[in-house]
Amino acid sequence: MSTGRKTAACLAVGSELLGERRLDSNSLRITAELARYGVVVEEKRVVGDSVERTAAALRDLLAHHELVVVTGGLGPTADDVTREAVARALDRELEHSVEVEGWIRDRYASLGRQMPAICTSMARVVPGSRPLRNDRGSAPGLIVETDGKLLAVFPGVPWEMEEMLERDLLPEVAGWSSGIERYTRTLLLGGVVESDTEERVRHLYDRFGRENVTILAHYGVLRLVLSCEADPEAARRRVDEMESAFREELGDDVAGVDVNGLAEVILDALRGGGQTLATAESCTGGLVGARITEVAGASDAYLGGVVSYSNEAKEALLGVEHDLLVEHGAVSEHVALAMAQGARNRLNADWGIGITGVAGPSGGTQEKPVGLVHWAVAGPGGAWARYRVFPGDRSIVREWSTNAALDLLRRRLLESHR
Amino acid sequence: MSTGRKTAACLAVGSELLGERRLDSNSLRITAELARYGVVVEEKRVVGDSVERTAAALRDLLAHHELVVVTGGLGPTADDVTREAVARALDRELEHSVEVEGWIRDRYASLGRQMPAICTSMARVVPGSRPLRNDRGSAPGLIVETDGKLLAVFPGVPWEMEEMLERDLLPEVAGWSSGIERYTRTLLLGGVVESDTEERVRHLYDRFGRENVTILAHYGVLRLVLSCEADPEAARRRVDEMESAFREELGDDVAGVDVNGLAEVILDALRGGGQTLATAESCTGGLVGARITEVAGASDAYLGGVVSYSNEAKEALLGVEHDLLVEHGAVSEHVALAMAQGARNRLNADWGIGITGVAGPSGGTQEKPVGLVHWAVAGPGGAWARYRVFPGDRSIVREWSTNAALDLLRRRLLESHR
Repeated sequence: MSTGRKTAACLAVGSELLGERRLDSNSLRITAELARYGVVVEEKRVVGDSVERTAAALRDLLAHHELVVVTGGLGPTADDVTREAVARALDRELEHSVEVEGWIRDRYASLGRQMPAICTSMARVVPGSRPLRNDRGSAPGLIVETDGKLLAVFPGVPWEMEEMLERDLLPEVAGWSSGIERYTRTLLLGGVVESDTEERVRHLYDRFGRENVTILAHYGVLRLVLSCEADPEAARRRVDEMESAFREELGDDVAGVDVNGLAEVILDALRGGGQTLATAESCTGGLVGARITEVAGASDAYLGGVVSYSNEAKEALLGVEHDLLVEHGAVSEHVALAMAQGARNRLNADWGIGITGVAGPSGGTQEKPVGLVHWAVAGPGGAWARYRVFPGDRSIVREWSTNAALDLLRRRLLESHR
Repeated sequence: MSTGRKTAACLAVGSELLGERRLDSNSLRITAELARYGVVVEEKRVVGDSVERTAAALRDLLAHHELVVVTGGLGPTADDVTREAVARALDRELEHSVEVEGWIRDRYASLGRQMPAICTSMARVVPGSRPLRNDRGSAPGLIVETDGKLLAVFPGVPWEMEEMLERDLLPEVAGWSSGIERYTRTLLLGGVVESDTEERVRHLYDRFGRENVTILAHYGVLRLVLSCEADPEAARRRVDEMESAFREELGDDVAGVDVNGLAEVILDALRGGGQTLATAESCTGGLVGARITEVAGASDAYLGGVVSYSNEAKEALLGVEHDLLVEHGAVSEHVALAMAQGARNRLNADWGIGITGVAGPSGGTQEKPVGLVHWAVAGPGGAWARYRVFPGDRSIVREWSTNAALDLLRRRLLESHR
């Protein structure tokens, strides 16, 4: 196999991945693992349960990439066409393997069951390939080298795919290493929009190479992926340098490095200061709480919150004054502040978040249109409120609001812990 | 354009869709809309920001499908290669359009901004194509017919893509109708697992055809997609018949037909009975509230809730007795029931949900392992509790719990409204 830069493609086989609900998410894990060894996924495809189309895709992808990783279609039913398609793409005929049938029988036996007769179809192997044992399921995978290209085929179940990827494919890929690796680092930014950020950092593209910087924006949260391809030590130094330069430009907009999200940053800051948080949500309906408690160990700092979807709930559970609701309306700066303070007081927390808005699609007025959201943070040193009319549909407005409130808290925590 | 069965392919352009985080989710919406007109998506691809690779994919897909829908790569920067790639695939040269530049200028003007010079690149059009105005963003799309095939190109931003899909493409596709349509109906099931359900309905496969039934399972919620291809009237009758047969087998496990989720079913039932709901969540941290308030108009029936992540919150906000927490522990049937009652009482609601559990990864004990969740529903006619040790990681346990609690409420509502 030749050295130098390798590219890869992912092919997912299965008509269920061409429906209205499911996406091929295996490719994310495969991409991430291959990237560690400098192998870049340059193309992804999904095809249905058709021998012909799968074989055609395989031939095409093998012609253009050093590695093709296929997932799915390895089960025992007539729908499962991948084994047949690989044989056809390589002009070989499937052969029954006694050894592989033994694996499948063992697997069923370990579950106290007899192997159904239909499963013998999974013991057919592509001549010249290496069958891969499946310790987490019954369908075996395979790896085969053809014309200097590598073809790896795994089951579609993520839990099974991951085992074979790590055990059987990555060691091969590691052997390709030319000493050149792709090193990446991700800066998480909060409270920013893509175009403004791009404007501010554009002058750094020339210095570090446009292809080494990727911006991923998601409703007020932005990920700036810095990367460099070089020998490991040089790559790390170069990315250190990139990080410094971007931080200089972006200052407090940078929430964290290689973190999952704002909630993680906030929980770390709260823990660091020995402080606690409570939330009061209206239009987000529990999303902020859900986001915070996604992080394992959130209970160290997050005491809980109130979803005050009705005015009654705002009064009864948060102590928001009735007159305030009447005078300013539920969607107002006053009420957002009172909710943040109410959460803080009722739960005896150091910090409180309050959010109230019109998520839509109905409920908007001229004065308070759909998308108008007020959010507030109350803490030991005072209280702060912000508002905006967010564009987009109900779920987008709720996403923006959640991120905006988390980011306001992040900035106040940063300020107060200085 | 010929009549008969049409197939389509989706092509997403953008290197960010080949990274470790993002999937092309636009294809789901496109697939769903096209399916309504009997057009089947048979292949999906993702390629990076390369004119050459995008053009090659376009040529290949146009050779095999009647319709190719491309998303992404239409912005103004050097990364945005789709316009150029379409021109190359069709052997045409881009031309500047004064009219399209006017649209872009108008769009910026409506936001009170001047069009940046770089945006003139978006006013280049493929000769012979129909440029598509973007009322939700600045990048125009295009539709072009070539050799009897249709190529539609939309921006990658879902909100912008959806507008053009509905306004510009679907009317064309509707005109293709050959009288044969694929008619689908989705039964939503709650509180079931895939293998048991499959066992119960397997005998119906022979009767209706295995290829006409798809099961999609998601942590306690299952979608059974029934479909039939025929002329519209016959297809509808056949699917009616399928629905009856499956319902007979599955009874109350069927939560709804063509609904988005359990929350929608519950809100409808509550509204139907003029009743209200409140929630009390511990391990799910707000997910149940978030799920319910995803549904527009949830405020008709959902009053709000409490995220009682700490014992103090359970006592202060829900009135859970201190002794109960001490005697049985926070994760117990007693506390789940007290939380459901507490939510109901404090918010003056007809129904209350309570959830408490060990989401993990830490916090488990021999007696109360990670994954143990107790959930309860309290209503006008009594209170009910259930528990289970759910498999999987933190996010999976939270997802199971949310669905389990919603399904228990659904069944109690069904019972009480009988």
